[in-house]
Amino acid sequence: MSVVEHVSRMAQSAKRVAPELAAASVQQRNSALDAIGEAIEIRRRDLIDANDRDVSAAAASGLEASLVDRLTLNDDRVNAMLEGLRVVRGLPDPIGGIEGMRTMDSGIQVGQMRVPLGLIGIIYESRPNVTIDAASLCLKSGNAVLLRGGSEAQHSNQLLAACIATGLEKVGLNPDSVALIDTTDRAAVSAMVQQKGVIDMVIPRGGKGLIERVSAEALVPVLKHLDGVCHLYIDKEADRAMAVELAVNAKTHRYGTCNTIESILVDAHAVDCLPDMIGALQAEGVEVRGCERVVTANIAGCVAATEDDWYAEYLAPIVSIRVVDGIEAAMAHISQYGSAHTDAIVTDCHSAAMTFLRRVDSSSVMVNASTRFADGFEYGLGAEIGISTDRLHARGPVGLVGLTSQKYVVLGQGQLRV
Amino acid sequence: MSVVEHVSRMAQSAKRVAPELAAASVQQRNSALDAIGEAIEIRRRDLIDANDRDVSAAAASGLEASLVDRLTLNDDRVNAMLEGLRVVRGLPDPIGGIEGMRTMDSGIQVGQMRVPLGLIGIIYESRPNVTIDAASLCLKSGNAVLLRGGSEAQHSNQLLAACIATGLEKVGLNPDSVALIDTTDRAAVSAMVQQKGVIDMVIPRGGKGLIERVSAEALVPVLKHLDGVCHLYIDKEADRAMAVELAVNAKTHRYGTCNTIESILVDAHAVDCLPDMIGALQAEGVEVRGCERVVTANIAGCVAATEDDWYAEYLAPIVSIRVVDGIEAAMAHISQYGSAHTDAIVTDCHSAAMTFLRRVDSSSVMVNASTRFADGFEYGLGAEIGISTDRLHARGPVGLVGLTSQKYVVLGQGQLRV
Repeated sequence: MSVVEHVSRMAQSAKRVAPELAAASVQQRNSALDAIGEAIEIRRRDLIDANDRDVSAAAASGLEASLVDRLTLNDDRVNAMLEGLRVVRGLPDPIGGIEGMRTMDSGIQVGQMRVPLGLIGIIYESRPNVTIDAASLCLKSGNAVLLRGGSEAQHSNQLLAACIATGLEKVGLNPDSVALIDTTDRAAVSAMVQQKGVIDMVIPRGGKGLIERVSAEALVPVLKHLDGVCHLYIDKEADRAMAVELAVNAKTHRYGTCNTIESILVDAHAVDCLPDMIGALQAEGVEVRGCERVVTANIAGCVAATEDDWYAEYLAPIVSIRVVDGIEAAMAHISQYGSAHTDAIVTDCHSAAMTFLRRVDSSSVMVNASTRFADGFEYGLGAEIGISTDRLHARGPVGLVGLTSQKYVVLGQGQLRV
Repeated sequence: MSVVEHVSRMAQSAKRVAPELAAASVQQRNSALDAIGEAIEIRRRDLIDANDRDVSAAAASGLEASLVDRLTLNDDRVNAMLEGLRVVRGLPDPIGGIEGMRTMDSGIQVGQMRVPLGLIGIIYESRPNVTIDAASLCLKSGNAVLLRGGSEAQHSNQLLAACIATGLEKVGLNPDSVALIDTTDRAAVSAMVQQKGVIDMVIPRGGKGLIERVSAEALVPVLKHLDGVCHLYIDKEADRAMAVELAVNAKTHRYGTCNTIESILVDAHAVDCLPDMIGALQAEGVEVRGCERVVTANIAGCVAATEDDWYAEYLAPIVSIRVVDGIEAAMAHISQYGSAHTDAIVTDCHSAAMTFLRRVDSSSVMVNASTRFADGFEYGLGAEIGISTDRLHARGPVGLVGLTSQKYVVLGQGQLRV
């Protein structure tokens, strides 16, 4: 059987049992999560042994040390995985609730019920904990899921998939509803993303290369973001001390995250904040690359930015700073160079704040807050399956609700259409 | 220039000016709708003349009489078009509102703002009034739009497009934001639906052939439904008189609409309603095709249904009736033969109603109401751009909100992430 055929059969089999999961009560779905946790606890040593095999093979094959680290499971990481399961179990049921119920002139009542999407595909790389994270969010939201992990984590993932199957079976749910693709053939990814009408949504979790490949090949909807070129704009009416603090936090809190700023835009009337801001960033070890107007201000240690800098997602202790003539120029810069992920303004001017909120076309827009808040947990979603910079279905950080759809429900007492 | 290149340039040009429209105030968008109406009023005679040319050419080419009728504009239809514009103008602004604002433990406030999607593509057939209907809904929701009407309506559509351009210019909006594709080459449709990243959503409005073609070729998201195989299930605890009335209304109110029922499922304990129901349907001129259990009940004039009947969308005075053993069998039938459009139960049993609502996986599910209510106006959406049976973005009747997306907005007072 070809890889395409194999993946297609697994997807169809998961899709077939999806309605059973969608119909399961929240008690049953929560019990399944408990039972999966118990199964992992029971097989904790087997899991760490299986992971050892993956780690040894990866190290022997010369995989980068940082990737080997991501792949590694130890007792602490298994504990974190189990804690993650408990957190998802504790979240409110995202499905079945009816929103917006209203009575129309005809007498019918109309509202919208949250329902599972159906079958979700998750494509990820070396971290085996994604297997449990993704499976638990899909199960909690009543969705069947087809998992495709990194081939380097195959033994770990197979053991985790066995624990998931044990948990599902224990509570009387069909284990086919959480399926791990059991081939390491890379063609399986292409096969997955072309399951139009079978897989309802694919979520790639990994590096830009994976996401680009999935997006280019996908015939099914993909929930994704590619880049995080985020901006902080310092308006002329910004509180200068706040501007410096926000710049430092948004840049240095973590360098490798998509909601970290890469560029700071400073209104020409606010350049008085530059010495303090650049000094504070440099004190944290950040390299500052400035536009001509920053460089000519002659602040020690600033190097000249090139056109490429405005497009760059450094994911590193580097920041570019550009002086702009007002909010329109700032918004034009963000529109041209940004990635529509997260952008913030620092200002005390209400109309500038409102203009920025309304007109900057990004998945998160902020006033006087660190872009690092663009996160499912910080937004109170309770979990995060991904961040979307696309416009359809979900935009910004995506939690359990992003794994659901809605259907209209109508309650009548025999009303006829006239 | 090839058709693909031509369409691609038009799409890019509309996309480029989309942010201007998205930033326009609701007063400006409403004034544009007023000005378009005035331009149509001024050129009313030219419009009817242009339409006469389309109608003559269509009649000469042997187009079906029903299609020629759809193509025809007269004073009444122009009045209806103008009234449609006024209705859309009167709807509340669907964009800019912020929903779900809440304060997190960190002190930031998080909500979601409704924003336009960007650039919508509308592909339709012979009815020229769709030009105004689609353009007005897109303008009202701050979206640029690329229109592709039927080639048989080209003169009418060009004149309407000129009126739209006049209206946009009068209020200072860029006329490129509403663009009519000016080639009658069918390849233009294929070119449109492949504008990934430029056109944000395509809505085909027309027959099944058009929708199938668009769906098969599309690389951009498509808002659509294919079939309307809708069911009415008569539960054992149904009020029998209500069941008969609902069956007649849902079948005979209009035959050609997607929310008309094609099959009636009757619980084996409710077959006592069959003589009245079948009699009432036959009195309206409906042909009844029954399963074996209906036929053996020996009700005059029933013919035997074949397997094909359960899949059929008759769009005609024909209905199939099947006796089923309880709600599980009814739901299994709907799942197998239905089109996930609209399905209803007639029952006085609360738990049967809740089971049906929760488990029938259709874009509208109803209790004790006619399926004919599945409609944007009846649901209070104020307008309807289409009905979606897909699960992502929009499901069920789609009004102005379906032409919008959301972005997160965060308000802080200098909060840093810790």
